[in-house]
Amino acid sequence: MQFTSERRLDDGVVEREFTLGEIPGILWTPASASASAPVPLILLGHPPLGLRKMYPRLVARARHAAADGFAAAAIELPGSGDRPRLAGAEQAGADLRRAMEAGEPVGDETIDALILPLVDKAVPEWQAALDALLSLPEIGGPVGYSGGVISIGVRLAVVEPRIVAAGLFAGSFVPRTMFEEARQVTIPLHVLLQWDDEGNDRQAALDLFDAFGSEEKTLQANMGGHTGVPQFAGEDAARFFARHLR
Amino acid sequence: MQFTSERRLDDGVVEREFTLGEIPGILWTPASASASAPVPLILLGHPPLGLRKMYPRLVARARHAAADGFAAAAIELPGSGDRPRLAGAEQAGADLRRAMEAGEPVGDETIDALILPLVDKAVPEWQAALDALLSLPEIGGPVGYSGGVISIGVRLAVVEPRIVAAGLFAGSFVPRTMFEEARQVTIPLHVLLQWDDEGNDRQAALDLFDAFGSEEKTLQANMGGHTGVPQFAGEDAARFFARHLR
Repeated sequence: MQFTSERRLDDGVVEREFTLGEIPGILWTPASASASAPVPLILLGHPPLGLRKMYPRLVARARHAAADGFAAAAIELPGSGDRPRLAGAEQAGADLRRAMEAGEPVGDETIDALILPLVDKAVPEWQAALDALLSLPEIGGPVGYSGGVISIGVRLAVVEPRIVAAGLFAGSFVPRTMFEEARQVTIPLHVLLQWDDEGNDRQAALDLFDAFGSEEKTLQANMGGHTGVPQFAGEDAARFFARHLR
Repeated sequence: MQFTSERRLDDGVVEREFTLGEIPGILWTPASASASAPVPLILLGHPPLGLRKMYPRLVARARHAAADGFAAAAIELPGSGDRPRLAGAEQAGADLRRAMEAGEPVGDETIDALILPLVDKAVPEWQAALDALLSLPEIGGPVGYSGGVISIGVRLAVVEPRIVAAGLFAGSFVPRTMFEEARQVTIPLHVLLQWDDEGNDRQAALDLFDAFGSEEKTLQANMGGHTGVPQFAGEDAARFFARHLR
């Protein structure tokens, strides 16, 4: 991991850009973080729209995490930003838009082609980032995963034992095979669902929530569309991480 | 309204028992409440098991409300405690238990016979209690309604304009006609659902949540059975009231 820039935000949060091989990323640490007082970490998941485009929302979430005493980090997803496109993703994306614009159901093959290659490539990258981040003296643990493409969160929750709690956003299409993986999840979950999310199948989201094997899992559904998550829902999610990472 | 007893709990909360005609009730006010600083009020709904049996849970909720600066009150439901039984309720209750023990679906007639007479009688009583409580100089407003038989909460939310926010518990059978009333509800709602509630139809609860006409409504589903609501869910509900009653 190579740090490429460092600046201090007005609230004392240290923002550092880094690269991990070809993957760009950003790490935010609270002013209090040090080798003698290492802090927990929240991995900030995000949709595959590019780190630059997502920056305003990511930095807001990172500041919130820092105020709770947590570091936060995000990496560019495969196929996003300046990274090479994923094979087949553009065709699948076009098929998805066509189906949605025509008001037709999105086919399982389209969802699989759009999501599964992304999950297969992104999850080991998040794990490599975790290796690098946890080697920093000011980052201790435990680690939470928050938001983004829900299938990435599900896979990470299954395969990555260093993640002890996950806040998921039921706001993207879910391949059928992911329901089987969901049954293997045992860590505490906090799942947000936008009840009227135009790009999301509500029943599939409820079925996925039902499938999770976790003993502690909470579904919080709020009104509004995909980007209309109310502020209090963000605060409830933050309290979920405070309960499990402190 | 006649006060029949008064005592001060260890945290300074004043607990007063009262009668409103033949209806017993309890009012809890925070130490801070006075004529020059009147406080908002939360009506504490509860299942029809009798105030005496429900007292430990009610006083815990009232202390929590008082810590947030709110008064809280509960009245005995018709047919509960020492009040005369409701005609037909025992037969409907026996039918309900028989169906549940046999693992059969509970018939609509049974649900209607169990719930509708209770709602019809309880709602005007809550409104009369509200008249009396709001005439006290130390109780100001606004007013929230919390928990208990969900159909009572729905009807109150429709007919009682002084109630500005309701926290409902999707934990009891819902007559079909109640879905139509739910569409008329417009106040902010916070609905708790126990995902594995043995005495509750999950799909009916989700359908009822969908039916509510409110622009702000939140569903929070947690694991566990009817009485297994986790502590953090109670705290989230308290924050809902703090947002809307302060």
